[in-house]
Amino acid sequence: MSIATNLPLSGERLWDSLMEMARIGGTPKGGCNRQTLTDLDAEGRALLQRWGEACGLTLTVDRLGNMILRREGRDPARKPVAFGSHLDTQPTGGKFDGVLGVLAGLEIMRALHEAGAETEAPLLLINWTNEEGARFSPPMMGSGAAMGLFTEDEVLAKRAQDGAVFGEELRRIGWQGKADPADLQDCAAYLELHIEQGKLLEDAGLDVGIVTHALAQHWFEVVVEGEDAHGGSPMAGRRDAMMAAAPLIAAVEEIALSTLAPSGEPGRGTVGVVEVHPSSRNVAPSRVFFSVDFRHSDPEALARMGEALAARAAEVSAARKVKAVVTPFWYSPMTPFDATLVARARDSAKARGLKWQEMPTAIGHDAVYMARKVPTVMVFTPCHGGLSHNEAESITPDWARAGLQVLADAVLATAGLVRP
Amino acid sequence: MSIATNLPLSGERLWDSLMEMARIGGTPKGGCNRQTLTDLDAEGRALLQRWGEACGLTLTVDRLGNMILRREGRDPARKPVAFGSHLDTQPTGGKFDGVLGVLAGLEIMRALHEAGAETEAPLLLINWTNEEGARFSPPMMGSGAAMGLFTEDEVLAKRAQDGAVFGEELRRIGWQGKADPADLQDCAAYLELHIEQGKLLEDAGLDVGIVTHALAQHWFEVVVEGEDAHGGSPMAGRRDAMMAAAPLIAAVEEIALSTLAPSGEPGRGTVGVVEVHPSSRNVAPSRVFFSVDFRHSDPEALARMGEALAARAAEVSAARKVKAVVTPFWYSPMTPFDATLVARARDSAKARGLKWQEMPTAIGHDAVYMARKVPTVMVFTPCHGGLSHNEAESITPDWARAGLQVLADAVLATAGLVRP
Repeated sequence: MSIATNLPLSGERLWDSLMEMARIGGTPKGGCNRQTLTDLDAEGRALLQRWGEACGLTLTVDRLGNMILRREGRDPARKPVAFGSHLDTQPTGGKFDGVLGVLAGLEIMRALHEAGAETEAPLLLINWTNEEGARFSPPMMGSGAAMGLFTEDEVLAKRAQDGAVFGEELRRIGWQGKADPADLQDCAAYLELHIEQGKLLEDAGLDVGIVTHALAQHWFEVVVEGEDAHGGSPMAGRRDAMMAAAPLIAAVEEIALSTLAPSGEPGRGTVGVVEVHPSSRNVAPSRVFFSVDFRHSDPEALARMGEALAARAAEVSAARKVKAVVTPFWYSPMTPFDATLVARARDSAKARGLKWQEMPTAIGHDAVYMARKVPTVMVFTPCHGGLSHNEAESITPDWARAGLQVLADAVLATAGLVRP
Repeated sequence: MSIATNLPLSGERLWDSLMEMARIGGTPKGGCNRQTLTDLDAEGRALLQRWGEACGLTLTVDRLGNMILRREGRDPARKPVAFGSHLDTQPTGGKFDGVLGVLAGLEIMRALHEAGAETEAPLLLINWTNEEGARFSPPMMGSGAAMGLFTEDEVLAKRAQDGAVFGEELRRIGWQGKADPADLQDCAAYLELHIEQGKLLEDAGLDVGIVTHALAQHWFEVVVEGEDAHGGSPMAGRRDAMMAAAPLIAAVEEIALSTLAPSGEPGRGTVGVVEVHPSSRNVAPSRVFFSVDFRHSDPEALARMGEALAARAAEVSAARKVKAVVTPFWYSPMTPFDATLVARARDSAKARGLKWQEMPTAIGHDAVYMARKVPTVMVFTPCHGGLSHNEAESITPDWARAGLQVLADAVLATAGLVRP
């Protein structure tokens, strides 16, 4: 295990860059609103480009807007070692989700540049397009399409709730390149540092988490169709879609809490989007749409969650003479990370005397898609109170530095650090 | 009681005009989407103007866009007798709600014109602006402001969900006039024919309803504030605004069904608008807004409904560590109609051999505001299945004719029909 202790990695420079990036889309509450393919996203991308070029990196942009900043290796025959994350945020996001992984990767590049060091394999710092999935759903489109899970055309045609089209927005902000996203399948490894977005590490007083696998997720769409009726009409004859949807929305939480793994661990259930038609105060709605995000550490329990929701929808449909339909929208299976890379990250944490543990991720990341085609690992940094997708999201500079060190060690052990 | 049997009132001409008006904003499902202050509203208004001028009426438009089509009387000292309703519809509205009252009024004017008949008092046919309240809330703004219940500035400044401003839209479609809306307080009487929007008349096999009073209504706004959290975060620490809102939405129905008048009659409760923030599939919402429309035949029971909702909100706030606030938005007290006008409508129904009953309205109408300042009555026509605010809203030509006859008889008995 080579420890990059001699490299001039700077936790301070990383922190300063995090704070500078956070000003682009910064919110009064201290969070960040830099949604994908907006003007602010373009501004964040341009800043990363300036920073990368200043330390000798060469930018390539692919047809989906993924940014690849390359540092050549000594051995051009070796496949590149890639690392990074995403600069886009939720509408009420924080300063660290995604950004930490990109800028920690930048810090590795800066330190190598400053030391005049070389690696055997080329290095790629990646900023993935639309990890968040807030404006254009589903999430992780850039990495998913690069790994062949979505077609390019499918991604370019996606529509936001406001009617904007992904491909048009990508061209409008000037960030559609010519490279083939599938080129990224040809990497030797992919490593990603990210905040935990949970409070396990903080509660246990740990510095870093080594992520061994990704939990299964299943997202659904529910549409309830009844009949609209005037707010003054008697209750008896109504087929009110909202009154049918309300207990189904509540059921998402009940099902998450009551569907247990053999270990006794419950699932997680979220209804993040609700749309009502025709949306008039004195009209009982004819149609309600809502999204469901189910996750579980146990894939079998996850399957039971989906079945339970469908069963509730059938009950409500029969009882209220409405039509409630549950449609699978997105599924992410349990995904193991690469054992060799996990060992490298673990060895770094041990060698540096950090407090660490192995853990799964309950949350989707670009790394989870990369793992389908490329040996992958993730490193987690604690975050206060587990808060994320929230303007109050926060980490300490010490946590950021610990994560940076483990990421750098694992990257350089993989790419082969050559002393200058 | 003078029966206008000799006037050439034409149920067929009324029906043809209803069908012609319905083409403006007509929907594929046979309904109508002619929302207030849209281009289609302007088209509907222009058609009414052409029809009115063709039978000798003079158009005045007031500063809120209310259209007043005047026919002079023989006695210029007498206050005018007004009648009408509204041409605007819900987003998924029908062909008859409001339109029937305006075009039945037009048919009276056409028949008088054709017969060369005169009345003692002048007649006013009114098309009220924004009765529906779908695009700009609250409903019945034109009549409410005319009767002094809202200020003109307040109405002109109202904003739609899409950001459009009432006054700007009114000018944009070219329908802001110069007359003072308050002039309409100086009428001798106001009469309005409308579809029932319930199925009492149809179920009882009646031709017509004579409306004696309006039930009390109380509308609320509910805002639930929690904290946003990532969809992968554990359930335990969440303060999910949507999971707190769901049981409150369901409570609106429970409260309506369980709050009984001394007669045992339940209330009515509707949640027509729900808005979720930040509206991302993998973010547990920090904020949910929803509208509540409560109605009851018993004003005391109505008051208890509002109290019950506030109590539930307080329970949910405490149990889930969120802040759920219930704010009164609009209140309409129990409003009696004019006994003399009620008697005239009843006498007409009797004299014409129609099957009729007296009944209250559970639904707000321009007539309910007019009744604050001007002697008022309403006449109801049955509608199939009680369906309204619905594209499938429907009535029969016979029902339309019966309503037209009673309206015409009561109008002419009030205004004093002079044989030509």
